[in-house]
Amino acid sequence: MKTIHIGLLGFGVVGAGVAKLLKEKKDLLEARIGASLNLKTIADLDITTDRGVELTGTQLITDAVTVINDPDIDIIVELIGGKTIARDFILKTLENKKHVVTANKALLANFGNELVAVAGKNQVDLAFEASCGGCMPVIKSLRESLVANDIHGMCGILNGTCNYILSKMSQDGSLFEDALKKAQELGFAEAEPSLDVDGYDTAHKLAILSALAYGMEINLDDIHVEGIRNIGPADIGFAKDFGYTIKLLAIGKKHENHVEARVHPTMIHNSNPLSHVDHSMNAIAIDADATGRTMLYGHGAGMMPTASAVLSDIADIARNIIAGTRRRVPTLGYPEENIQKIPILPMAQLSTRYYLRFEAQDHPGVLSTISGILGENDISIKSVHQKGRNANGQVPIVMLTHLAKESRIQAALAKIVQTDCVVGQPVLIRIEDDETE
Amino acid sequence: MKTIHIGLLGFGVVGAGVAKLLKEKKDLLEARIGASLNLKTIADLDITTDRGVELTGTQLITDAVTVINDPDIDIIVELIGGKTIARDFILKTLENKKHVVTANKALLANFGNELVAVAGKNQVDLAFEASCGGCMPVIKSLRESLVANDIHGMCGILNGTCNYILSKMSQDGSLFEDALKKAQELGFAEAEPSLDVDGYDTAHKLAILSALAYGMEINLDDIHVEGIRNIGPADIGFAKDFGYTIKLLAIGKKHENHVEARVHPTMIHNSNPLSHVDHSMNAIAIDADATGRTMLYGHGAGMMPTASAVLSDIADIARNIIAGTRRRVPTLGYPEENIQKIPILPMAQLSTRYYLRFEAQDHPGVLSTISGILGENDISIKSVHQKGRNANGQVPIVMLTHLAKESRIQAALAKIVQTDCVVGQPVLIRIEDDETE
Repeated sequence: MKTIHIGLLGFGVVGAGVAKLLKEKKDLLEARIGASLNLKTIADLDITTDRGVELTGTQLITDAVTVINDPDIDIIVELIGGKTIARDFILKTLENKKHVVTANKALLANFGNELVAVAGKNQVDLAFEASCGGCMPVIKSLRESLVANDIHGMCGILNGTCNYILSKMSQDGSLFEDALKKAQELGFAEAEPSLDVDGYDTAHKLAILSALAYGMEINLDDIHVEGIRNIGPADIGFAKDFGYTIKLLAIGKKHENHVEARVHPTMIHNSNPLSHVDHSMNAIAIDADATGRTMLYGHGAGMMPTASAVLSDIADIARNIIAGTRRRVPTLGYPEENIQKIPILPMAQLSTRYYLRFEAQDHPGVLSTISGILGENDISIKSVHQKGRNANGQVPIVMLTHLAKESRIQAALAKIVQTDCVVGQPVLIRIEDDETE
Repeated sequence: MKTIHIGLLGFGVVGAGVAKLLKEKKDLLEARIGASLNLKTIADLDITTDRGVELTGTQLITDAVTVINDPDIDIIVELIGGKTIARDFILKTLENKKHVVTANKALLANFGNELVAVAGKNQVDLAFEASCGGCMPVIKSLRESLVANDIHGMCGILNGTCNYILSKMSQDGSLFEDALKKAQELGFAEAEPSLDVDGYDTAHKLAILSALAYGMEINLDDIHVEGIRNIGPADIGFAKDFGYTIKLLAIGKKHENHVEARVHPTMIHNSNPLSHVDHSMNAIAIDADATGRTMLYGHGAGMMPTASAVLSDIADIARNIIAGTRRRVPTLGYPEENIQKIPILPMAQLSTRYYLRFEAQDHPGVLSTISGILGENDISIKSVHQKGRNANGQVPIVMLTHLAKESRIQAALAKIVQTDCVVGQPVLIRIEDDETE
């Protein structure tokens, strides 16, 4: 039986999960693939901590370059993370004509075009199923299953931390800060949570998925990103009253000559299956012309779900090696020469529906002033809602709009905050439902 | 650019969808795959009806054997359906060392082991993504994405007709017969609906998916199959009261030395995402050791969703041809020599929870008699519910049990119907939730 040698860079949580699967599922993998997957060497600066993985037959060393240069090794798995050293290691591996498997979404979102080009130049595989949506097979679906579809759009819940926090707020009326603290206690959020709660992690994934879905270059810079810090229990409550749920969504849509690519808290109707994706679970709905809507759901992070996705990439490459081929499916699903530069619509030009919440002064004429300014900006109001009164005497006023232009909404809000009608910044949440179309 | 020639057998609804995608998505497929997919010949007995597909460059003939014997053709797509002539054609194609793509679940469920063996002997690919769950990539997920997982169980809504009928009954309290009629009017059900509403179609799919998930031979005969004809509005109503939904589920579970494989109406809790899969949509939840629960959701039938799945198989085989390989992934996900004969647990030995509805006579002692017989059979009652009274004076009594053995339940019901306590056959619906585990 052929042996395929694997080198692992980074022996953290996911790295340990990958080592565990390669060791404990050795027989299963051999029975399925018909080759032996040998974890030859692991490189990590920490070679003393016990990760609870039995490593007989595997070397644990500190020097990644030794692994990258080992002529026996066919596949390098990069699980160091970050955008500096991981990039150097991956580039060196690709130049050494070894295949790379990585879960590094930040790296791919920022430097993916370079890595894709170098993998192509060296005719090796660069695989990254674990970078988006954990064990959900979203990369494989976009690259292979939907091959005959034009993809119209994607809506994804791609960050378990945010989804946990929003679910918690929705379930028990927690404040954002308290739900975040709880998430940190349970290990669903980092001590420094910005990458997650400010939407950047979701944007990394959207940049990758948009490239795959639309055959375009990876473009993180032009994605609009908002996090969930401004969402309050009042918004959650109003959403419930309307039959909506608030989720942090990655939204990618294809138009004729551009795409939309945006990450922000979004109200979706409870008839949308994404609204029922709770706790730290991830899901993505993909609208394509032949399939209609499909959806994938699963653990978007965590040791073993992520390791499972890494293993699916390793198995794919192993099957290529056994079959005597490589790059059977191009890195981004299209050969590099067919990948286009498709512009992302500037946010100001977006047209969608809006939920607006104002903390209004309780005096006559306020509603008329606010709605007047909205009207001047061509924003048509679908409904106005007012519930209760704050302790400080202000009245929360919520307005739902019909389709409106983002630039007009922003102009109107800028003008409204300058009046004496409202206190503080209004809350704006975009609404995504079939009426948006 | 290499040209790969395709022959299509069967120009019905799905066949027309496949032809449409091959024609209309020619550029997209070339841009992705790097080869030209040429639909060389279509064989169908009806060569006159206009299917609305522009066929320039494609021959439409009546003789399938001419297509199968055409030395230019690399891939034959079988969309005739049925278990007789389709089987002959597929066997002949495989013996001719051509690859086969089919959506024929009935054929695979009944004669799959033979077809798998013949494909293996002739070293060609036999692909069938479209046979289960339409455009949901469930075959690819089981064969490739979950490669490093031991799969513990699957629960699937795999028949759109049944799901439409049950959703309709749940939404407006329709009787089964009325919901079926509506489904037929809308084209979601056949004039002869037995294959769907009696659960056989779902069983075909479960036989295929169990083989893929558990590395076992296809075994349709030992799957327990019940349809949805006995479900009444009363059951739907009680389920709602309990926070449950009734779905026709395909359930496959792996135990140490056997599997469970059964198809029947099932109560699932509304916290289970499958409970929100409505109308004619399909979904499957897969529990595996590394990934935990994942779920796929999509259109399980229909012209274009099914054609999309057929195209994903064609693209996979085309990519193999370009790469100079074949059978890169074995037909059932394991090389044939590693496929085991795993017995399916006889239904009598099943342990699960039950919903039982009796139409009870309204006289003293009835409840005591029924619960006495259940008790004698080691069936522990979790709760008893009674709501209203029928026009004929009978009282619907519903009991939910704790975990109980199917043989005991059947024995108890047989005894209860012999008493003068109840009228007609009791309704039995198995309950599937985390408490079952």
